[in-house]
Amino acid sequence: MAKPITDFSKLCVHTLTTRPWDLKQCIQNFSAAGIHAITIWRNVLEKQNLHEAKRMLDDYGMQVVSVARGGFFPSVEKENRHLAIDDNLLAIEQASAVGAPVLVLVCGADGRQSLEKSREQIQEGIEQILPDAKKAGVKLAIEPLHPMYAGDRSAINTLAQANRMAEEINSEYVGVAVDVYHLWWDSNLQHEIARCGRNGNLLAFHICDWNVPTVDFLNDRGLMGDGCINIPEIRRWVEDAGFSGCNEVEIFSEKYWLMDQIEYLEKIKNAYLKFS
Amino acid sequence: MAKPITDFSKLCVHTLTTRPWDLKQCIQNFSAAGIHAITIWRNVLEKQNLHEAKRMLDDYGMQVVSVARGGFFPSVEKENRHLAIDDNLLAIEQASAVGAPVLVLVCGADGRQSLEKSREQIQEGIEQILPDAKKAGVKLAIEPLHPMYAGDRSAINTLAQANRMAEEINSEYVGVAVDVYHLWWDSNLQHEIARCGRNGNLLAFHICDWNVPTVDFLNDRGLMGDGCINIPEIRRWVEDAGFSGCNEVEIFSEKYWLMDQIEYLEKIKNAYLKFS
Repeated sequence: MAKPITDFSKLCVHTLTTRPWDLKQCIQNFSAAGIHAITIWRNVLEKQNLHEAKRMLDDYGMQVVSVARGGFFPSVEKENRHLAIDDNLLAIEQASAVGAPVLVLVCGADGRQSLEKSREQIQEGIEQILPDAKKAGVKLAIEPLHPMYAGDRSAINTLAQANRMAEEINSEYVGVAVDVYHLWWDSNLQHEIARCGRNGNLLAFHICDWNVPTVDFLNDRGLMGDGCINIPEIRRWVEDAGFSGCNEVEIFSEKYWLMDQIEYLEKIKNAYLKFS
Repeated sequence: MAKPITDFSKLCVHTLTTRPWDLKQCIQNFSAAGIHAITIWRNVLEKQNLHEAKRMLDDYGMQVVSVARGGFFPSVEKENRHLAIDDNLLAIEQASAVGAPVLVLVCGADGRQSLEKSREQIQEGIEQILPDAKKAGVKLAIEPLHPMYAGDRSAINTLAQANRMAEEINSEYVGVAVDVYHLWWDSNLQHEIARCGRNGNLLAFHICDWNVPTVDFLNDRGLMGDGCINIPEIRRWVEDAGFSGCNEVEIFSEKYWLMDQIEYLEKIKNAYLKFS
């Protein structure tokens, strides 16, 4: 087990975790709750002046851990792959504008072609946007997604695959994101976490829980302690691998989105201390 | 790609694929459709005299490929683990009674303990029932289940894990079942199929498709061709590994169970020739 968590200095909350809130509400309410780190999902940046966003974040002393998400590179249609590049360049601009050092990539998959082909297109896509990422000072984090998303959301489904791709691209601007939800089942996880730590590629650590049973493919994630993931054990592996960044709470949950979000934030804080 | 399939000599259909039918209807309708191999799910054996079942199967010249399913060994409660053993011994008896050479194991998981602990209990369970399996002449096939079932249905989620366990138990009465639905996403699949083939451990091959998107965790499997799995490629790996048994169509689908099952069986036959 990892050392117990005793304060909120490394707690980061994703804006999508409290989806009913816009960016301003997230910043104000996180801050009032003593949470000083945020990962910004791009939906809350739509129709949002980015300079104002940056000023709000600074006014509240809010550390931006990352922007989510770029990616979705693969497609059978070339035209779609071009559109994906444009969208990723925009995401890099947004990340840079709000002071995010990392852009998280949900890499994408196209079920009409093989996973290998999709992976090739992912790597091509990352290599294509890399010069802009470097220029903007934004690192790209390849996030492996659970194999249940291999048909449509990501052809990168294990940390081994993400590590391999990051190592092949071999840039200090490309690394990986470890999310317990996607990876907890993998018996190679400890080994692969050590590997990306050793290579300096471990850029982000996301937590939530796996509900038993899980009833929805996207929006039935559990709060830490609700489910069956041994989060403290995985956190220890991540810390042993040299990671000293934030523990990011990323929960998509129709159930929790229905709650009063202020009360929910208190639940998150309690669960964070107790089960992370 | 594998050699195209041109006839139904290796087509086996699971009784649960045509769930609305009882055993007699399955036997009669499969036979009328020119399908001469069946895998029997235990729900259709409830309240069924096993001698009569065997006579019906023989009367129609129906080859029983396997019985599904045993397993569900792990539990935090010792009492439940005992009950599981009893149930597996009953399953072995049933398999023997209907002339099935293989009992498929859905191994189980208990989210209240670690996957490692559940795996230990699975191996203990298999070793405990093995003498009865031998005596009955029924082989036990460890079926790795998709990682999305790691919380509650199986702590064995890759073919590598199933292979390792079968090799450790090291009995000609224990092998593995390869189901494309559970394993298609795994980039080590070809390698692991070759491994169990080489060891004589490849006991069964199940086919269906992965719908994009998939909307239900249990009962939204696709008919071959509906989804994104390259079934002919995986079949080639299985055949290259020396497997010469049946291609078993195992589809759980609320959508297809609503159809007229006679028409559905024709759809299955067409899809089998075209997309398997």
